[in-house]
Amino acid sequence: MVGLAIHGGAGGDGPWKGPTDLDPQRIACMHNVLATVGSMLEDGIDALEAVTIAVEMMENEPLFNAGIGSVIAADGSVTMDASIMRGSDAAAGSVVNVKKVRHPIRAAKLVLDNNWPVMLNGQGADDFAIRNGVEEVSQEWLITDLRQAQWKKWKAAKSRPGSTDEDDEAMLDHDTDGMGTVGAVAIDSKGVLAAATSTGGMTGKPNGRIGDTAIIGAGTWADNRVAVSCTGVGEAFIRTCAAHEVASRLRLGESLTEACENMLEMVAPLGGRGGVIAIDCNGHIEIPFQTMLMYRGFWKDGEIMTGIGPDLTSQ
Amino acid sequence: MVGLAIHGGAGGDGPWKGPTDLDPQRIACMHNVLATVGSMLEDGIDALEAVTIAVEMMENEPLFNAGIGSVIAADGSVTMDASIMRGSDAAAGSVVNVKKVRHPIRAAKLVLDNNWPVMLNGQGADDFAIRNGVEEVSQEWLITDLRQAQWKKWKAAKSRPGSTDEDDEAMLDHDTDGMGTVGAVAIDSKGVLAAATSTGGMTGKPNGRIGDTAIIGAGTWADNRVAVSCTGVGEAFIRTCAAHEVASRLRLGESLTEACENMLEMVAPLGGRGGVIAIDCNGHIEIPFQTMLMYRGFWKDGEIMTGIGPDLTSQ
Repeated sequence: MVGLAIHGGAGGDGPWKGPTDLDPQRIACMHNVLATVGSMLEDGIDALEAVTIAVEMMENEPLFNAGIGSVIAADGSVTMDASIMRGSDAAAGSVVNVKKVRHPIRAAKLVLDNNWPVMLNGQGADDFAIRNGVEEVSQEWLITDLRQAQWKKWKAAKSRPGSTDEDDEAMLDHDTDGMGTVGAVAIDSKGVLAAATSTGGMTGKPNGRIGDTAIIGAGTWADNRVAVSCTGVGEAFIRTCAAHEVASRLRLGESLTEACENMLEMVAPLGGRGGVIAIDCNGHIEIPFQTMLMYRGFWKDGEIMTGIGPDLTSQ
Repeated sequence: MVGLAIHGGAGGDGPWKGPTDLDPQRIACMHNVLATVGSMLEDGIDALEAVTIAVEMMENEPLFNAGIGSVIAADGSVTMDASIMRGSDAAAGSVVNVKKVRHPIRAAKLVLDNNWPVMLNGQGADDFAIRNGVEEVSQEWLITDLRQAQWKKWKAAKSRPGSTDEDDEAMLDHDTDGMGTVGAVAIDSKGVLAAATSTGGMTGKPNGRIGDTAIIGAGTWADNRVAVSCTGVGEAFIRTCAAHEVASRLRLGESLTEACENMLEMVAPLGGRGGVIAIDCNGHIEIPFQTMLMYRGFWKDGEIMTGIGPDLTSQ
């Protein structure tokens, strides 16, 4: 009955052209996460720790946009957001715009464990996390050559005469190299659901921009019916309260498939191309997306499936 | 058909003991807000601008915990949160932990008008707001003698031997002098709904704590059915996605009365004593609370009602 689904971000328009040179590394990471954490769930680990470990493993992969390899904001720095929620008791934790920790999701988990408050911001969040044992790292450590190159490309386009904020946003939305928010949802052997999401945001994001990943109800939600993690253009997911909307639609009597798809249809007109992973209290998994691709996979009864474009494959 | 409801915070346990020496000033402010903005709505102002002006007027009242007179955080500074949403197009804006602006709600409104992003944090939010014409003020200007005294009382209790974070939180929850988040919901002559909420948070809040006021879906929500603004111990409102939960329950077929009361019943077991104001697309208003008191009032068809304890009165 235990189950696990993960994503490594959604993005792009038009038909998928097949894997890039970098994609095998991403798929290998996801396969490793699913095999490792799936077994842990079979062995009785709780859902909250399972999604934390799954997201930590993806934060460790520089090709995903979370932890090391996070994309670079307008001011040249990395600022990361993460949130986590356990369905059985509505416990939640979130860190916003952290700059100094290797694992923002572990910081969010520690905020959850600490019980109060639910959300910590910036320096206060970094200090809390480091004081409680999350590994401290430098900005230099977090920033990779790939992200530097993407940021320089963004900066050059931005400084073109006549460049507008709208051009800027449009370019970012389509920069499939710069996506890669990560997330996980799980159900454990006691039937407890949990969800976790972590991101570096968007290349060239304005100083102080907060997306949906840090927001309980927008990027992350878990209750006794369902656990949800979203990825995509975060603003539209905030404006639709997207993750909580999936739970709300289940309560209306919609199936998990309908709830996820109807949520994505609400998000799309607001510019929110993206995707969602969800697992319900019966272990049913949905991983729909509206973009060109979504890095995603699931573990169920020992079976592992992963995919980037339209199809999922076992390995 | 136009309508307006406002709150100036909820808090306290046990039976209400009647108005304090400071309460007439608070009631006078609320009455002025309702008379002024109610007339503006009759004259055709849109709901979004109406709730912005209503909240600005309460931010100007030092006895409410928003704008000047915001409570003081653990580190001795004032950091303010505000958010706003328009129901007709799900447009939203939010500023988090701002320190330099007279009117956080105007800053959030400008973020909404700017279309993207939805949420701005700290220095980035202050810079954006000031660049776009929101009045810049100093921390000294924002901090009043009353809030200094409350902060010193908190600091003294905190430094007692054996003082724990739990004592600290319990004391804060009961410090009725330190509450006073403000909010407004309105429906305009075109039937558009809007909601706005603004706060200084809690006396002695940890550095970086973000409450529900800044969070679309938690403290503030508006769609085509309802506009909602919450007040109380914010963490529980985040963990229940409280404002969006009211909208979600209306969709289930609950009445506005049932939706608000059932939301508050979900929030209470999580430590979320508080209240909510809501107005629906038929102009029906609800302002329930579970605490000792809630500063609140509404304007409907030229009638103004305000209250603190159990009863509302006209003036």
